[in-house]
Amino acid sequence: MTESLINVTLDWHDRGLHYGDGLFETMLKVGGQVPHWESHCQRLVKGCKQLFLPSLDLSWLEKKLTEVTKKTDTCIVKIIVTRGVGGRGLKLPNPDQCSVFVLSYPFVQPSNKTLKVSVCDTRLPMNPNLSGLKHLNRLDYVLATIELSNKTDNDEGILCDSEEFIVEGIINNLFFIKDNQLFTPCLSLSGVNGIMRTKIIEHWAKIDKTVHIGRFKLGQLLDADECFFCNSVQGIRSIGSIDGQKFDTGAITRLLMKRLNNFLPINTDGLG
Amino acid sequence: MTESLINVTLDWHDRGLHYGDGLFETMLKVGGQVPHWESHCQRLVKGCKQLFLPSLDLSWLEKKLTEVTKKTDTCIVKIIVTRGVGGRGLKLPNPDQCSVFVLSYPFVQPSNKTLKVSVCDTRLPMNPNLSGLKHLNRLDYVLATIELSNKTDNDEGILCDSEEFIVEGIINNLFFIKDNQLFTPCLSLSGVNGIMRTKIIEHWAKIDKTVHIGRFKLGQLLDADECFFCNSVQGIRSIGSIDGQKFDTGAITRLLMKRLNNFLPINTDGLG
Repeated sequence: MTESLINVTLDWHDRGLHYGDGLFETMLKVGGQVPHWESHCQRLVKGCKQLFLPSLDLSWLEKKLTEVTKKTDTCIVKIIVTRGVGGRGLKLPNPDQCSVFVLSYPFVQPSNKTLKVSVCDTRLPMNPNLSGLKHLNRLDYVLATIELSNKTDNDEGILCDSEEFIVEGIINNLFFIKDNQLFTPCLSLSGVNGIMRTKIIEHWAKIDKTVHIGRFKLGQLLDADECFFCNSVQGIRSIGSIDGQKFDTGAITRLLMKRLNNFLPINTDGLG
Repeated sequence: MTESLINVTLDWHDRGLHYGDGLFETMLKVGGQVPHWESHCQRLVKGCKQLFLPSLDLSWLEKKLTEVTKKTDTCIVKIIVTRGVGGRGLKLPNPDQCSVFVLSYPFVQPSNKTLKVSVCDTRLPMNPNLSGLKHLNRLDYVLATIELSNKTDNDEGILCDSEEFIVEGIINNLFFIKDNQLFTPCLSLSGVNGIMRTKIIEHWAKIDKTVHIGRFKLGQLLDADECFFCNSVQGIRSIGSIDGQKFDTGAITRLLMKRLNNFLPINTDGLG
């Protein structure tokens, strides 16, 4: 892709607005660096292929990110990639064109407390064509956020799919531990394939352990010894309660926080 | 809603772009009038309620539409309503604020030929929270459009849900006729509740006939005597073939075209 084919101004006719026809990445910039930058790029490239979006010029993207965030060493960065400006209707525009928007937000240090969590009634649809992707069709998550805001004082919600299998949080991936074994929902039907989730699975493999990836019912989560959420902006955070049922921050959550939260601006051990 | 709370400029942080957090309406303006304007407004109001969007000032919207389209008597109008400009993350902005964009496109007279149609491999997810709504999360339809563009010379695609029940076309609702009975897929799990579909169901009720609304398999469609698509911009259009299997334009399709296509700029009887 040549630079001339990257649209950086937002147009009324951008397919991101009309159809949510695109992808996004959210990441931290800390001390002038973006932790896991290569992983974010790899996921973006893979997502573009899956949605038949034009391939991205990653060195242009890195330069753009540096330019947009040049005034700050530490911030949150959101990259939005869309299929560019279209005419009327779904018919695809010039296949070589896309829009790329790089936005920067102040970083707010998350609280060190364990998370108070509630199970959402909102169900995620099962959609193998889109599952795993960090795409722009997020109405289900908006509805879950509205639902959560109507409950008192919850930090995050747990989302299940329409067959009642647990998937993830609204803005986090989910792990739980039972009898020293690590479990996380598979994302082949619903959910977002998070970078931190991948880092945890890779780390666990490095120390010769197996992550059990599968479809698990809520009962299995509630029967866990410990559980935690993770994302690229807040790292790993221990779950303190699910709908009032209390969980302790156990040894495995502590270990993973210690090993993998070190990219955060202030190393939160999250032990509350 | 007061006018000051309606955002009409497109911002990088509009939730329409970030999450597809909104709705749209597509309609014709013909001879200075918008056919079925009240029905479009009703659907928009209902959709806003369902997504917890602020209620719309419809007289403001009508004025805005008049202003945007003042240079032409005949055009296509697209109205986009989003949850407005948000901060970082899914947390809702000021609940009284929304963005409304009114866009106008030239009207292109559709061909009078019957439609050449193909069944898409792309499946629609089943999602009772969003089904029926004309929301901005349209990636499934983008993928179906890409699929259709890779097949030769098709006018429209038929979409089934993940349980293999027929739902609609990519940009149309679907009806079929068997033994003088009219059938259309129910939209409680997937699909868009089109204005023309409603007009057809209402018209059929007026002449004391029943439309069979249910979940139908592809085999039932292929066994039909006649079938047609409909939407608010092109009216009712007869299907001439589905993956090579030919269909005649029968008496019921002709009757409905005659009665309900009269809003089109040039009264297409669609008889090819």
